[in-house]
Amino acid sequence: GKLYVAEIEFISVTFTSLFIFYRLKESDLQLRFCTNETQATRETFVAKLQRLGFDISVSEVFPPAPAAIAVLKERGLRPHLLVHDGLLPEFDAVDKTNPNCVIIGDAAENFLYQNLNEAFRVLIGLEKPVLFSLGQGRYYKETDGLKLDVGVYMKALEYACDLKAEVIGKPSPTFFQSVLSDMGLKPHETLMIGDDLVNDVGGAQYCGMKGVQVRTGKYRSVMSSSLMINFVSATNGAISNISNSFVTGFVF
Amino acid sequence: GKLYVAEIEFISVTFTSLFIFYRLKESDLQLRFCTNETQATRETFVAKLQRLGFDISVSEVFPPAPAAIAVLKERGLRPHLLVHDGLLPEFDAVDKTNPNCVIIGDAAENFLYQNLNEAFRVLIGLEKPVLFSLGQGRYYKETDGLKLDVGVYMKALEYACDLKAEVIGKPSPTFFQSVLSDMGLKPHETLMIGDDLVNDVGGAQYCGMKGVQVRTGKYRSVMSSSLMINFVSATNGAISNISNSFVTGFVF
Repeated sequence: GKLYVAEIEFISVTFTSLFIFYRLKESDLQLRFCTNETQATRETFVAKLQRLGFDISVSEVFPPAPAAIAVLKERGLRPHLLVHDGLLPEFDAVDKTNPNCVIIGDAAENFLYQNLNEAFRVLIGLEKPVLFSLGQGRYYKETDGLKLDVGVYMKALEYACDLKAEVIGKPSPTFFQSVLSDMGLKPHETLMIGDDLVNDVGGAQYCGMKGVQVRTGKYRSVMSSSLMINFVSATNGAISNISNSFVTGFVF
Repeated sequence: GKLYVAEIEFISVTFTSLFIFYRLKESDLQLRFCTNETQATRETFVAKLQRLGFDISVSEVFPPAPAAIAVLKERGLRPHLLVHDGLLPEFDAVDKTNPNCVIIGDAAENFLYQNLNEAFRVLIGLEKPVLFSLGQGRYYKETDGLKLDVGVYMKALEYACDLKAEVIGKPSPTFFQSVLSDMGLKPHETLMIGDDLVNDVGGAQYCGMKGVQVRTGKYRSVMSSSLMINFVSATNGAISNISNSFVTGFVF
């Protein structure tokens, strides 16, 4: 679930979320919060959650950008960025001179004709073009209507350059692996709870983690699955069954 | 070949083009000029060619827009347009109220975040979304660099709405059929000459027309094919072998 859905939905779910959050905090489970948020830095994001009453720290939050930066380091890549202005500070310490790859996030108003052409020119000018996409969502809802998400622009650049992007964020295995290695745990020792059957539950299960879907957020009754439970029983189940770890998608 | 490539390329090819043009005009062949131009009306486009010395009339030119308008009429569709400002007058007489389909062309500077969101909202709001794309090109070159073409934005909307666009323009069969019916001819009575192996030659051959590729415009020696000839011999061949008709792609 995105944080910036309609106000009314946001408020109505927060009370349950707060209850769940502190139920988990009281336990001795290790917690990580996985989100595909790419419009703000972790600091901004966590500050917002803290104002809402969540006692959460930056080190517990896993958005795609830091995972991408880890991949850049590992492979000696310097990115050209097409991302939201709010995300830029995450890349402050990253070498962006003479770029040899492109990273796109949910750039929103930065998805200008000129900026897309520029990202394309960087890619087409490379001997081996590498495109990272921070998510592959199609669209999302804001108070003023539906907005196209990063996945749509990823497909555009894929077609233009005849390549396949590497997705970083849920449900990509790279993303879940980076969370697991941060916790120092094996997949079977963890449980992922989320509202999205593909991005949260499917992505986790593909990596060998346990995954359950909750009936909040984007859950719709048509998506029937034996794994669906409500968030409170998911939490109780997690606390009694999983020894020492817990990964959760944000469902506010 | 696009008309607005680099100035130097434009000028160097024009002399050959003029020679070919008048060689064909002198014959008793029926001529039609097929182009994927979607940034200007036929009137503007033809006026430009006339200033360059081509004695050509609007009725001989076949761009995608009029073919799209014919399809709209046939199927009772009212379009939401995401096209170049220069193309809008072609759609003056078309009913655009309460749209039940979307048409995208090479909108260039009009490919704004807001405009793409708007086209997407129209599509996603329809029970049976219909997307027409005036071409499926990936990119083209202008004097100030490479620009993303309409096909890229077509792929973006296809992914967002989980649909397949209907392409109008070369190499789509619908497009070549509309040219053939305008000439009142069967496919085997016509010859298509062009520089693009897929859009010109392939599209025509797929419809049962003869197709030859010339060594001008975007021809590169790596694209070897037994069908490639130079434009002058293509013309001579056409005049001696084809009885009364001739369809040509623009190669200026």
